[in-house]
Amino acid sequence: MTRRTASVFALCLGTFLLFSGCSDDHPSLHLDAHLSPALLLNLDCTNFFYKKSPELMTGEKLDAYADSILASGATIVLINTQAQRTNYASEAFEPFWQGYEPAAGDDQPFLAGIPPEGRTGYRRMVECMLALHEQGVDYPGRLIDRFRQKGVSPWISLRMNDTHNNDNLHHPIHSTFWRENPDCWRVRDRQVDYYDRTLDYSCPAVRARYLGLIDETLQRYDIDGLELDFLREPYVFPIGREAENRDLLTAWIDTVHQRISAAERKLGHPIHLGVRVPADPEIARQLGLDAVTWAHQGLVDLIVASPRWATIDNDVPVHTWKSLLRGTDVPLACGLEVRYQPYENGPAAMASPDVAGGAAMAALAAGADAIYLFNYFFMHFPGTEWTFQAFSERLQAMAEPQKLEQLSRRHGVTWTDVTAHGTAISRPLPSHAARHFFRLNTGPRPDNRDCSVLITTTRDHGRIPELRVNNVICPLQSSRNDTLIYSIPEAAKASERQVIEAASADSRPFTITRVEYYIAALPAVKDQNLR
Amino acid sequence: MTRRTASVFALCLGTFLLFSGCSDDHPSLHLDAHLSPALLLNLDCTNFFYKKSPELMTGEKLDAYADSILASGATIVLINTQAQRTNYASEAFEPFWQGYEPAAGDDQPFLAGIPPEGRTGYRRMVECMLALHEQGVDYPGRLIDRFRQKGVSPWISLRMNDTHNNDNLHHPIHSTFWRENPDCWRVRDRQVDYYDRTLDYSCPAVRARYLGLIDETLQRYDIDGLELDFLREPYVFPIGREAENRDLLTAWIDTVHQRISAAERKLGHPIHLGVRVPADPEIARQLGLDAVTWAHQGLVDLIVASPRWATIDNDVPVHTWKSLLRGTDVPLACGLEVRYQPYENGPAAMASPDVAGGAAMAALAAGADAIYLFNYFFMHFPGTEWTFQAFSERLQAMAEPQKLEQLSRRHGVTWTDVTAHGTAISRPLPSHAARHFFRLNTGPRPDNRDCSVLITTTRDHGRIPELRVNNVICPLQSSRNDTLIYSIPEAAKASERQVIEAASADSRPFTITRVEYYIAALPAVKDQNLR
Repeated sequence: MTRRTASVFALCLGTFLLFSGCSDDHPSLHLDAHLSPALLLNLDCTNFFYKKSPELMTGEKLDAYADSILASGATIVLINTQAQRTNYASEAFEPFWQGYEPAAGDDQPFLAGIPPEGRTGYRRMVECMLALHEQGVDYPGRLIDRFRQKGVSPWISLRMNDTHNNDNLHHPIHSTFWRENPDCWRVRDRQVDYYDRTLDYSCPAVRARYLGLIDETLQRYDIDGLELDFLREPYVFPIGREAENRDLLTAWIDTVHQRISAAERKLGHPIHLGVRVPADPEIARQLGLDAVTWAHQGLVDLIVASPRWATIDNDVPVHTWKSLLRGTDVPLACGLEVRYQPYENGPAAMASPDVAGGAAMAALAAGADAIYLFNYFFMHFPGTEWTFQAFSERLQAMAEPQKLEQLSRRHGVTWTDVTAHGTAISRPLPSHAARHFFRLNTGPRPDNRDCSVLITTTRDHGRIPELRVNNVICPLQSSRNDTLIYSIPEAAKASERQVIEAASADSRPFTITRVEYYIAALPAVKDQNLR
Repeated sequence: MTRRTASVFALCLGTFLLFSGCSDDHPSLHLDAHLSPALLLNLDCTNFFYKKSPELMTGEKLDAYADSILASGATIVLINTQAQRTNYASEAFEPFWQGYEPAAGDDQPFLAGIPPEGRTGYRRMVECMLALHEQGVDYPGRLIDRFRQKGVSPWISLRMNDTHNNDNLHHPIHSTFWRENPDCWRVRDRQVDYYDRTLDYSCPAVRARYLGLIDETLQRYDIDGLELDFLREPYVFPIGREAENRDLLTAWIDTVHQRISAAERKLGHPIHLGVRVPADPEIARQLGLDAVTWAHQGLVDLIVASPRWATIDNDVPVHTWKSLLRGTDVPLACGLEVRYQPYENGPAAMASPDVAGGAAMAALAAGADAIYLFNYFFMHFPGTEWTFQAFSERLQAMAEPQKLEQLSRRHGVTWTDVTAHGTAISRPLPSHAARHFFRLNTGPRPDNRDCSVLITTTRDHGRIPELRVNNVICPLQSSRNDTLIYSIPEAAKASERQVIEAASADSRPFTITRVEYYIAALPAVKDQNLR
């Protein structure tokens, strides 16, 4: 889009802006967060192919896959096409199957980097990609057409620095470029952590490589938007050199923006430029990802603030983002991950519908313009609460805050899973003290609804801890093993934030490993047998 | 000032704006941080009287006191006139001496709340205040006149919720209002921490009480500015009730702004409204102190972001503040405390001239429009590096970043000393790990200057830890007891931030309790024998 940006959500309403004169002459469309029906869903590049068999790789099956995604109610689907390699026959990047010998055995050079027990699975995925290609079906192009037919706005999402399996140099997932250019790795002389081998955008060859992929994408595909996904991975400069390279990356984003403008002229309709960056705007900036400046310079049309992967984040600083974006028309989408982990290296599980709904409600109430889902393309997940119905109902409600608010939800204390080396991040759990305080983002005040607080403690908490919410004592409702549930009286309820306080009955310190604020569905919703 | 604010620093340049038509017709004065000579200095309400004797309480001595402050180079002096009581004969608040019986002994009721060994000192201070008053000298009025004569802009700073000694209900420092209205305390039914007995601004009587003091101040004194000092104390609402009272406080700030406007009309010149709030804008907001909104609503003319007391803060989020204030003309001053404590409850000392200079340089380089000094009214401090010359030279340089940059400075890792219950804050030290990372805000790159990193470790660090700055190895320069100093090669230097990494030589974890980045004075400055 042009520097005077129109709302990216215009398109998902089906209001297809004609390109000619759409930008400066039309008033910008301001998004009303509580009316907008936007919901963004990222589709990763391997899901369709993974654990499938080549005979299922037909255009019709791909259409059916697209149709199944419609159950999410997503208004924008972001089709990811690559990691280090593409899932289509790219000329800019190598496709996943380049170097693969269909007739050779599992001992072929292409698979040598994978331990023998993993070769069959990886080979099968590559065979599926190749099979679709050999049928003449172009994965991104076919999905784009199908989504557009069905009234869903198609974007492409490019991972700007994916380095899955980077601790294994010989894995076939790697590009030749990455493997042959260790001088372009972010940390060159040693490996301290997993992200040291991401690519360094201060190398001209790295910028040229990704610009080549962007050019190809814009040339080949008629998309409504392009997302630069900086959360795979957010480490794009050497340690401590982020500040001095920040303007270089901003200038490069400007170059991308110019390519977008050229493609808009060619296609005759707007193409939006989105960026996905770490949840905390200051951490993003410390990493060289100065998204707020990109917005104020008119280079981007959408910012997605999101955790990386480790956990859904119930406390993305949405209000700070929105305040920083004041004076721009750039909407903020809050990203939800599907994993729920209360603290780093702690136990993790799939976020339940209530946990996902809680994080979405908290973000929307804090001012997020939309919810963006990552790793939520499963439709159902046997053995969990994610039935087809729950998937459809809960995700669709994320585009309708009034409806979402009526459903049950659960707000958990979580942590911030991206930092810049040496920058302090939020890690409230585990907490060890005689008196603990947590400040949970819970959205609108849940008047006249059953609410409870759950805490998980270590067994050495002595007698049952006293629990207060906003300084009002909450009676114990039930306990089971190390988990205590307290019911919340009406007088303890507040809007936006709840201060949860747990004090040991004998003044001895104890450890808390999980804190959740649960809000039951509105009675009217329950009565209608809606979940 | 009016809603379209002119820069508060216009006045300190001696450019006395005439009030008529100064606001909407004149272009707003934008402050150039690197040219502005502003330096703000807070004078607390007891310093002139403390440890003095009544015979020294004359108008001439007070003038001399004001003149001594000129050595700081302060362009704006903020005269604090009260805590719970005033140091002048107020009718809105009780003066410090109300209830004191000069002829009675140390066993009089007024002093009963003080342990016997403390009575003489407190009594002496009160006698000094009374003596000045009885000579017909009004402390604030006399200082205002003197500062104005000397070309320094006089402000009054009101502490909006001072509750020194609140753990001792009978201390004579308390107001009758505070003592007799426990229903207006923030936490009413119990005491969990020191700040529970601050006043609750959701009580109309509390707002009325402070508005009365503001009215009196504006009526009695011809000031250039009024500061509402919310850092004594920042806890103005009950726990968990801050969000729902935030707008109430904003409306009250609007009321104060209207009183300021009325006073401006009466006096015929602008009066600026400043607020002093916690260093972190989101924590301030979580406490109900929504300074960013106050600025965007045109209610305030200056924001001071500052630690409370425990430590000078080398990492006030100045860039975030400035970004949040984009679109307003409201300048941001960064507050410096005089105490330096690397971690909570750890050893603390007075900030040296180099430590103060380091924090000031970091803040100015990050975009602060000015430095604001709290508890820096000592002129010299025997037994420390703060000689008269050092005081004068270092403080004056804080108004001239180019000069400050040439001097030596020391950037220490510190912590954020104000939080809202349950909100995670930055506490990098002590750090216990096999590999540590710190990201220090150090201002402009110190090219061609001797630089070193100091770390203090526990003795169990094994062999000498390897130290890197921005991933470049730094050789050990010296060690003494638990303190290690490494010299920084030119290749390791970067602008803005330094990532300091310390790794144990044997992979065993060890503890770091202090980290400092030292930058020697520019050689030219050293040659001139300037400190």
